[in-house]
Amino acid sequence: MKPANLHIAWAELLIDSLVESGVTDAIVSPGSRNTPLLIAALRNDHLEVRAVIDERSAAFFALGRAKMTGLPPLLICTSGTAGAHYYPALIEASKTHTPLLVLTADRPPELHGNAAPQTADQNHLYGNYVRAFIDIGMPDDHDDALAGLRRRAAQAFAASLGPIPGPVHLNAPFRKPLEPKDRNDADKELATRIRSLRARPLPQPEGDADHAGTSASRAAIANPPPRTLARFIDACSKSRRGVIVCGPRANGPAAMNDRLAIQLFAERAGFPLLAEATSQVRFTGAAEDFRADSFDLFLRSPRFLEGHAPDLIIQFGSTPASKGWEVFLERHTGTRCTGGSAPPVPHWVITPHGWNDAQNSATDFLRAEPGPVAAAAADQLGEKDPAATASWREEFRAADQVTQSVIAAHFEESGELLSEGKLARTLIENLPRKSLLAVGNSLPVRNLDIWAPGERANLTVWSQRGVNGIDGLISGAAGAASAFDGPAVLYLGDVSFLHDLPGLALAGRTGHPFVIVIAQNGGGRIFDLLPLDSDSLPNKKDMDIWTTPHSLGFLHAANLFGHHSFHIKSRQGLRSSLADGLERKGCTVIEATIQRGEGAGEGTGGPAGELRKVRAKLDGTLCIST
Amino acid sequence: MKPANLHIAWAELLIDSLVESGVTDAIVSPGSRNTPLLIAALRNDHLEVRAVIDERSAAFFALGRAKMTGLPPLLICTSGTAGAHYYPALIEASKTHTPLLVLTADRPPELHGNAAPQTADQNHLYGNYVRAFIDIGMPDDHDDALAGLRRRAAQAFAASLGPIPGPVHLNAPFRKPLEPKDRNDADKELATRIRSLRARPLPQPEGDADHAGTSASRAAIANPPPRTLARFIDACSKSRRGVIVCGPRANGPAAMNDRLAIQLFAERAGFPLLAEATSQVRFTGAAEDFRADSFDLFLRSPRFLEGHAPDLIIQFGSTPASKGWEVFLERHTGTRCTGGSAPPVPHWVITPHGWNDAQNSATDFLRAEPGPVAAAAADQLGEKDPAATASWREEFRAADQVTQSVIAAHFEESGELLSEGKLARTLIENLPRKSLLAVGNSLPVRNLDIWAPGERANLTVWSQRGVNGIDGLISGAAGAASAFDGPAVLYLGDVSFLHDLPGLALAGRTGHPFVIVIAQNGGGRIFDLLPLDSDSLPNKKDMDIWTTPHSLGFLHAANLFGHHSFHIKSRQGLRSSLADGLERKGCTVIEATIQRGEGAGEGTGGPAGELRKVRAKLDGTLCIST
Repeated sequence: MKPANLHIAWAELLIDSLVESGVTDAIVSPGSRNTPLLIAALRNDHLEVRAVIDERSAAFFALGRAKMTGLPPLLICTSGTAGAHYYPALIEASKTHTPLLVLTADRPPELHGNAAPQTADQNHLYGNYVRAFIDIGMPDDHDDALAGLRRRAAQAFAASLGPIPGPVHLNAPFRKPLEPKDRNDADKELATRIRSLRARPLPQPEGDADHAGTSASRAAIANPPPRTLARFIDACSKSRRGVIVCGPRANGPAAMNDRLAIQLFAERAGFPLLAEATSQVRFTGAAEDFRADSFDLFLRSPRFLEGHAPDLIIQFGSTPASKGWEVFLERHTGTRCTGGSAPPVPHWVITPHGWNDAQNSATDFLRAEPGPVAAAAADQLGEKDPAATASWREEFRAADQVTQSVIAAHFEESGELLSEGKLARTLIENLPRKSLLAVGNSLPVRNLDIWAPGERANLTVWSQRGVNGIDGLISGAAGAASAFDGPAVLYLGDVSFLHDLPGLALAGRTGHPFVIVIAQNGGGRIFDLLPLDSDSLPNKKDMDIWTTPHSLGFLHAANLFGHHSFHIKSRQGLRSSLADGLERKGCTVIEATIQRGEGAGEGTGGPAGELRKVRAKLDGTLCIST
Repeated sequence: MKPANLHIAWAELLIDSLVESGVTDAIVSPGSRNTPLLIAALRNDHLEVRAVIDERSAAFFALGRAKMTGLPPLLICTSGTAGAHYYPALIEASKTHTPLLVLTADRPPELHGNAAPQTADQNHLYGNYVRAFIDIGMPDDHDDALAGLRRRAAQAFAASLGPIPGPVHLNAPFRKPLEPKDRNDADKELATRIRSLRARPLPQPEGDADHAGTSASRAAIANPPPRTLARFIDACSKSRRGVIVCGPRANGPAAMNDRLAIQLFAERAGFPLLAEATSQVRFTGAAEDFRADSFDLFLRSPRFLEGHAPDLIIQFGSTPASKGWEVFLERHTGTRCTGGSAPPVPHWVITPHGWNDAQNSATDFLRAEPGPVAAAAADQLGEKDPAATASWREEFRAADQVTQSVIAAHFEESGELLSEGKLARTLIENLPRKSLLAVGNSLPVRNLDIWAPGERANLTVWSQRGVNGIDGLISGAAGAASAFDGPAVLYLGDVSFLHDLPGLALAGRTGHPFVIVIAQNGGGRIFDLLPLDSDSLPNKKDMDIWTTPHSLGFLHAANLFGHHSFHIKSRQGLRSSLADGLERKGCTVIEATIQRGEGAGEGTGGPAGELRKVRAKLDGTLCIST
């Protein structure tokens, strides 16, 4: 007699072993072929199960959550094209070293290759974008098969966390019937064997006992190699004109813990700290005297740039996105085969994963979490003479203060209606302490870098700065919010909003306020920043291909999902609607219309106009040089 | 001196060569890296360019269009995750042998592997799901490089059409600046060389001169191998109990042309014609006396099944989806290793591509388009004695008529409120002649098979029956409608509608009426048909994972995109809202609420309830046997 419920027992052994390894969450999408997996997930009391219809949204939700927790959520979907919808989020997960587990149900071998419905070859569906692909095979009650299944669950979990965290794909074929049957004696015998198998604990890879973002491989990375570390500290200690730049970084527990160490390091080293909005180091809610938040603006100014050649560059996290930083780096490191024979400026990149060097200017990599490196360096730099670097750092601070005044004055003069800059700044000024700010790509993240100083808010910042797509932002932010104990605000552009409409179904289920602020500027205005104009196109109207203007009322989208909504145009409108949304559980959508064409005679107006005006004023004001 | 606009010239040579090969449409999504490609597309007067924000929708739109035209639309997107959104539609295209060209912009080699923004390895992004992957390399003005680019465009187009039509992926890296510059002398010299290159016509693979779905490889397939064809006709001529079944088939020019040939063949052979709703052979608007449209119901009846063993099975197109057919085939072909030693029933599968044999019962494949085979067979079967098969065929017809009466009587008794069956039947009865019916997967396609007889409407039917996902249906139907000269109606379920919300942006741009009928049954009611009940789950509420109930007002979605909308519950409501929508250019959304719980004491009620009732009445009525 064969067990009538082998398929269910098999699915349960898989899911239970994943949970035993450390999985705590499943994001599942409905289907028929994945029925055994869903039943197993629902039967496991230690697994929190969320259902999401659109697999694309589900995957971005899982990605957002994983970035907060450092642990891999388990995605489960049915066979066919379902798993293909995970692909964009998986690529982002791979590029940001975020752990994810994907479990696709499949049809049995005999239904492949004969045009059976809902069947596609799912082996290696995600190519090189997963850390491992595991075909778990058909349900099989052989002792070895059962032990193998359990081992592969442990392997999948381990592979998602290290040595390089990322997505892992398990494929699980099942034959009909997929539903539970009445138990027979063979089922009972199988249950006894599985109990005995499960009594043996799963192997802990490399002695890893604690899964909360500190697996053994991570621990090795957290302990930086001593000789390289010593060399780095020596360089810091000798430098008189060092610069610390912090690029995008996921908002996991490690990043938030590293904040203080990096601040202390900047203080002791005496270097200016240039922290991007997504670095987790900018929005501390205090105006530390080593931070110069407006560097994206003042580094573009030739008058500042010329006089400020660094002798050491220290980069924490990913490649910075700021244009100002790019200009600074290019000017002073000669990466374009034009640097002559002078030795390159030492450029240290300190990051556990990723060759984070988009301008090919790095001279040294230190493979470690930024926090422990910064802490060790700060400790040993205690003796460094503050006077050695004081004037250098003060010049960055002064430039920042001048820039902030120019911005503030410009905003005062230009009235109440929202510009890109006024939206970003007003938003930051009105977020409650210890809230989560999720920020979209394209213009929003740039606007924060340019216009939003860090002393105005104490924030955890969530972003998708791996491949920087405008996709999946609502779903991803909802996933991040689901793992955050406090209010969350997502700031994104209108095109991004349209790209992830189904994600609205996931917003506002957390028990905390979730506010979406849409910068409504009638399409993809980042393209206004490109040196492309309608003269190079056959018809003026062709610019629409880039800027995708639309005349949609986004509040209908909010209504569709039962969310509260506002349409506002002024700073005051933003303040009051934000205050309302932050008082209310569930999701609030704020459509914030950006004033257009303020820069008459400045081409397309909009953000480019505002940026140009402030830069012109700044160039006339900045007169710092060494 | 180097040409300042090599990137633009390179992109233009690529696009122009694709258009010269036969591409007529481009579906483009905005981005920056693809700027040279977009400019080149806009500058080509023979290319129709449409912009779609969401790449997932764009790809389904292109797929829908390609199914109508038989030609590959050109998809163009930017770098990063953008191309990954094409993946679900590409898999569907691959499985349905639909031509598609995908052109992804990419960053140059030096920006790969160093965490540069919006960069991911796009080589072989779609694994085995494309017929060819072509890396066209960086813009290069070497004579050989230019000639090679032109050749690869021709190869890409050819590979998308044959020998097995499907998607082809081109990857095109570009370095900044991406916009056009002022022309210099080197640009002019380059233009001269390119003009000279373009003066040589592109090679025509295998003498292919006409691209309208009749490439050389297709012509070879259209001419069936003579000896196999003779054997097939001989089998038809001898058979007394033959059955013709027509499975799903894309609605390209070939399929619509084949309709008459297949009808004539059925007539001459004297076999009943069992045509599924998606076969292009059912909805002819006439009640041909060889068709038995309700076979999905009466073939399930044991009383009919036992007495009707076929001696020949002829399958045109893809594997049929009907449960009744599956039961019939299993009963009479013994595919489960229980057939004994009797010779198998001859089962011919006639299809140009695909091993369309989901039950492993095929005995012979005839690799050809159905039309020419049917025409040749009809021609030679002119002498066949009609009396030899008359009673066999009449029994199928009689069963069909009984079934149709039972259905009609049941609908009369059960009132005005919509059931799944009443919605499907009322819809079919109220479509104008020569309209396009796009049908969703899961329940809608099954409902048409069961409840909608073909004499009520003359239709072209569009479906996605390759992998049968519930994804991309609005976008795909909009693409099909864009290539159809007449009104279009999309009939789909509520979960499918939610899965493709961004597709609503594409609906109703065709100049013809486009009506979306949503079968609103509060979630995925197909799962009511599964033998899964809440008793096998830890909590009753867990069934929600499958049925995904929701309380969304879909009319807000219509408002969001400026579409007209209705919410109806009765047959009369459907008739009048449909009439209104079919009078109006642009898109109309009809939310048709299905009455639930009509089958008291029948478990979950809904569709299973209705189906069970009709089947019970039918089992008491059908008493035909040979």
